[in-house]
Amino acid sequence: MTDFNIEDYIAAYPDFPIEGILFRDISPLLASHDAMSKAMDQFYDQLAPFKPEGFAGIESRGFLFSTLMADRFGCGSFMLRKPGKLPGDLVRESYALEYGKNELTMQANTPIKGKRIVLIDDLLATGGTVKAAKSLIQSVGGQTVACAVVIHLADLGGQDVIDMPLVALATYD
Amino acid sequence: MTDFNIEDYIAAYPDFPIEGILFRDISPLLASHDAMSKAMDQFYDQLAPFKPEGFAGIESRGFLFSTLMADRFGCGSFMLRKPGKLPGDLVRESYALEYGKNELTMQANTPIKGKRIVLIDDLLATGGTVKAAKSLIQSVGGQTVACAVVIHLADLGGQDVIDMPLVALATYD
Repeated sequence: MTDFNIEDYIAAYPDFPIEGILFRDISPLLASHDAMSKAMDQFYDQLAPFKPEGFAGIESRGFLFSTLMADRFGCGSFMLRKPGKLPGDLVRESYALEYGKNELTMQANTPIKGKRIVLIDDLLATGGTVKAAKSLIQSVGGQTVACAVVIHLADLGGQDVIDMPLVALATYD
Repeated sequence: MTDFNIEDYIAAYPDFPIEGILFRDISPLLASHDAMSKAMDQFYDQLAPFKPEGFAGIESRGFLFSTLMADRFGCGSFMLRKPGKLPGDLVRESYALEYGKNELTMQANTPIKGKRIVLIDDLLATGGTVKAAKSLIQSVGGQTVACAVVIHLADLGGQDVIDMPLVALATYD
């Protein structure tokens, strides 16, 4: 792991998607097998103490990591999606955005009853999505044991909102 | 691989997202580590002859497989996304939907010049998205050597549109 700094594989784009926002982009990380492999090793080492039995991928960049980490831990994964995307009986949870609100859904028959679930996404900002995700998972009987993200934007206070242990590979103030 | 039928892990939901459509859902596949592992073995075996050097994940369910297969082949991956999602200089391609049209984008600096790229998604239907994706990848110098999907809806004619070899784990008429 020596000499591997994940920050070297995260690009920064000023004023995207809107003026005043510095967008952190994981594309260079995805492009490098060596860097991805080391990043996934870090996730594995830091998540192993939580004994994950399932991974919840948050649409859509969370999907880049949910199946990969489920494969490493030998367990399954499932999708948390925006409205209109998942078929079947769903559970739903609204969450606030800076302006307006959004909704997250998951399938009510997701087989996670009593299981130790890790929520995974590329980035933690205000924590609103993760909080909604936690509520959904608990509503179908899963335990949310940790939240794992590549990038943690610490200034936005998400860590105080999510109310569970956080594993972050890169933290920015 | 004996006794493994991937179709047992694909659910069907009539009239979703609109009346008359039978939606094929990979959630049961994702939920089972054993089934996912066998499905990824099948992808690996069928894609190995194409000697992949990069995987293009098509938003958003393609992301569930792009990083995982890139990891298996020891290469990188990148994202093909809807407009407004990717930062930086982009290449763009429009494609027709049943009503209206949509646009796919990728980063112009994606490091795939001369590389053998496999396009990956959960499902091949009419092939419009894959055709647009192929054009984008070629525009930045990549070679599109194959298209890999979990589900192929053969009646919709996508295989004739994509103009490259197709690897599909489950085919429905």
